[in-house]
Amino acid sequence: MLTINESRLWDRHIEMARIGATPDGGVTRLALTEEDIRARALLIRWAEDLGFRCEMDAICNLYIRREGDDPDAAPVMSGSHTDTQPRGGRFDGIYGVLAAFEVLEILQENGIRTRRPLEAVVWTHEEGSRFDQGSTGSRVFADPASLPAMLAMTDAEGMSLRDVVTAANAATSSLARRPLGAPVAAFLEVHIEQGPILEEANCTIGVVTGIQGLRNFSVEVIGESAHAGTTPRLRRKDALSDAVGIISALEHLMHDPDDIARFTIGRLMVEPNAPSVVPERVKFTIDFRHPDAAVLRTLGDRIGTTCRDAARNCGVRVTELRTTLPDKFPAVVRDIVTSAAARLGLSHMPIFSGASHDARYLAQRCPAGMIFVPCEKGISHSEAENAKRSDLAAGGNVLLQSVIELAGR
Amino acid sequence: MLTINESRLWDRHIEMARIGATPDGGVTRLALTEEDIRARALLIRWAEDLGFRCEMDAICNLYIRREGDDPDAAPVMSGSHTDTQPRGGRFDGIYGVLAAFEVLEILQENGIRTRRPLEAVVWTHEEGSRFDQGSTGSRVFADPASLPAMLAMTDAEGMSLRDVVTAANAATSSLARRPLGAPVAAFLEVHIEQGPILEEANCTIGVVTGIQGLRNFSVEVIGESAHAGTTPRLRRKDALSDAVGIISALEHLMHDPDDIARFTIGRLMVEPNAPSVVPERVKFTIDFRHPDAAVLRTLGDRIGTTCRDAARNCGVRVTELRTTLPDKFPAVVRDIVTSAAARLGLSHMPIFSGASHDARYLAQRCPAGMIFVPCEKGISHSEAENAKRSDLAAGGNVLLQSVIELAGR
Repeated sequence: MLTINESRLWDRHIEMARIGATPDGGVTRLALTEEDIRARALLIRWAEDLGFRCEMDAICNLYIRREGDDPDAAPVMSGSHTDTQPRGGRFDGIYGVLAAFEVLEILQENGIRTRRPLEAVVWTHEEGSRFDQGSTGSRVFADPASLPAMLAMTDAEGMSLRDVVTAANAATSSLARRPLGAPVAAFLEVHIEQGPILEEANCTIGVVTGIQGLRNFSVEVIGESAHAGTTPRLRRKDALSDAVGIISALEHLMHDPDDIARFTIGRLMVEPNAPSVVPERVKFTIDFRHPDAAVLRTLGDRIGTTCRDAARNCGVRVTELRTTLPDKFPAVVRDIVTSAAARLGLSHMPIFSGASHDARYLAQRCPAGMIFVPCEKGISHSEAENAKRSDLAAGGNVLLQSVIELAGR
Repeated sequence: MLTINESRLWDRHIEMARIGATPDGGVTRLALTEEDIRARALLIRWAEDLGFRCEMDAICNLYIRREGDDPDAAPVMSGSHTDTQPRGGRFDGIYGVLAAFEVLEILQENGIRTRRPLEAVVWTHEEGSRFDQGSTGSRVFADPASLPAMLAMTDAEGMSLRDVVTAANAATSSLARRPLGAPVAAFLEVHIEQGPILEEANCTIGVVTGIQGLRNFSVEVIGESAHAGTTPRLRRKDALSDAVGIISALEHLMHDPDDIARFTIGRLMVEPNAPSVVPERVKFTIDFRHPDAAVLRTLGDRIGTTCRDAARNCGVRVTELRTTLPDKFPAVVRDIVTSAAARLGLSHMPIFSGASHDARYLAQRCPAGMIFVPCEKGISHSEAENAKRSDLAAGGNVLLQSVIELAGR
């Protein structure tokens, strides 16, 4: 049975991890920054050396195409993202891109033809760490009508995604353009698990059954700046003090003795953020996830009221940024992945994903699925993120066999 | 009786407020930024046009000197600061500088000689909004041994004050240098009150009796970054969640039914500050002030323990940055100011300062005092800060008469 090139796959991870490398062994490569564009350029160079055609769409999703015997057939796609969290890890996202590319390369090297074309894809801004809403590229691919709203998002420096996309287009002007949302026969994404389940079960391959639901909010607390030395407490409208009360109330609302609900305030910013000025304004994000759609609805719907009730002296504005219900991947794709893992003699198990992924949005357009491999102690979104070379190769081999199967259908 | 030029003093406030002007009518002019250096350059131009000598010391304090009949006598100094809070006001600091300069100018215009030399001074980085510790210039002037530690402070971009001072020196290389801590006969600072007392008492001049004590701390909460979708609450070391608990405990500790204690968390920063990453690290500042030295000591000494006791899963590091006991200004200066206000027919009252000022550090070197004028609704450290043209002139006239008196002694 054909297998991928384990050393090459590993070495390319090491090479990619140099782009945006942090002193503590992680990577900071935010979407469409200079680092992200360098990572994409490296991938394009490898692709063009092999004669693959590279194209980009209106949100800078990057497609690397290996033609099939039937050029009019919809392609089988695989991929993930090249962007990372600030001080993120060396495997999250990039593994799915490099594995998809390795599949194309090993088939090319061995002169193996497929009926359908194959495409390795980089989806833009999956992490949601530069602009408000993550999985931007795959969501726009699934719903091209959302493009204008997405392009209007601005980053912390006030740059719009529209400007960023324009600049990225200028930096890669030699690439052909393609329209959004072309037909897809099937989509597969490999990824590190980002949780501890596979490692604890001593299992190599997770056949992903679905992804938990997710609601994102932004909260703005609006007070009044004042002098820290002269303004009595009773005259203050201290936005940070009110934000602290609001966050305590939210933690109380979200407290789950079974520890299934995931509630995170990951970003918080204070204005003017000076030691001797009573804070005028605080903005923070809410990331709330749950596998049960009913709980996601009920608890999520109480976030706005909880914030407003907990405010003492300040105004509060709560905006819902994204609601994504729990997803299930179709049995047809799960069966192909399971049978590939079995043929390869790899331990495998069904697994539900706590993390969100581009595959959930592709599932709105075609049969889609995911393959997980273990990561050390389940740690991700961290410089300490780590994975084994042999596990990455195992995931790549399951992807290869699954893609060959799907491309023949 | 000689009086200052009210229109000129007002117009110069308007001109200075253009340097770093914000859209909402305030000023952002952080210490030794390009804006601050432009404000100083404007002042130097005015000074040199009048033939005054300008000098700078090792921490970029700026001295504008009008010679006296006895060139060997220690000068009478007056001044304040040109730096502002981020999105601060048009009067805090700059009023004390422009009034001091107006005193020199009106004496020069009228050919009035004084025995002692007079100096208008700009103290560097009073606000404490760029580097950790405020009143940097006046503290180093009072205690030159503190210079190396102060120069080692870094701003949010990682630039050291040493580098910033070097760059500012290069930008004003034509100025003469002077050593730190030359003898001073007396120091007077005029300032807007930054509180509501004078306005509510319908009184024009506050004769400042003293300044409340101040303790500044920085707190660092050290957790672990993790994936927001996959990491169970019981496995998290969420630095923001712990910081919220710590701040609640501190607010409880500092709660004062009499509303005399001033407790402010003005700056808080989260790392990596991304919506779907459990926060690894939170840093925040504590600004605690009280007029009573015993309360300042007792409550301040409990801050460290309170922070550590309230932490649940994270490490906590508490660093005390500055302790300044409550200060009293000497009767000799207060009497001169009071009698000047009386001669000018201005309403006046003794007043205790909630805000800290450079004058408290000058008081360690010479007889020192302050003159307050009202500001609208007591609002300061805010773009809404406002003051009346006639009140600014009144304070300037009290300063003029007091300086003439002190310069003759």
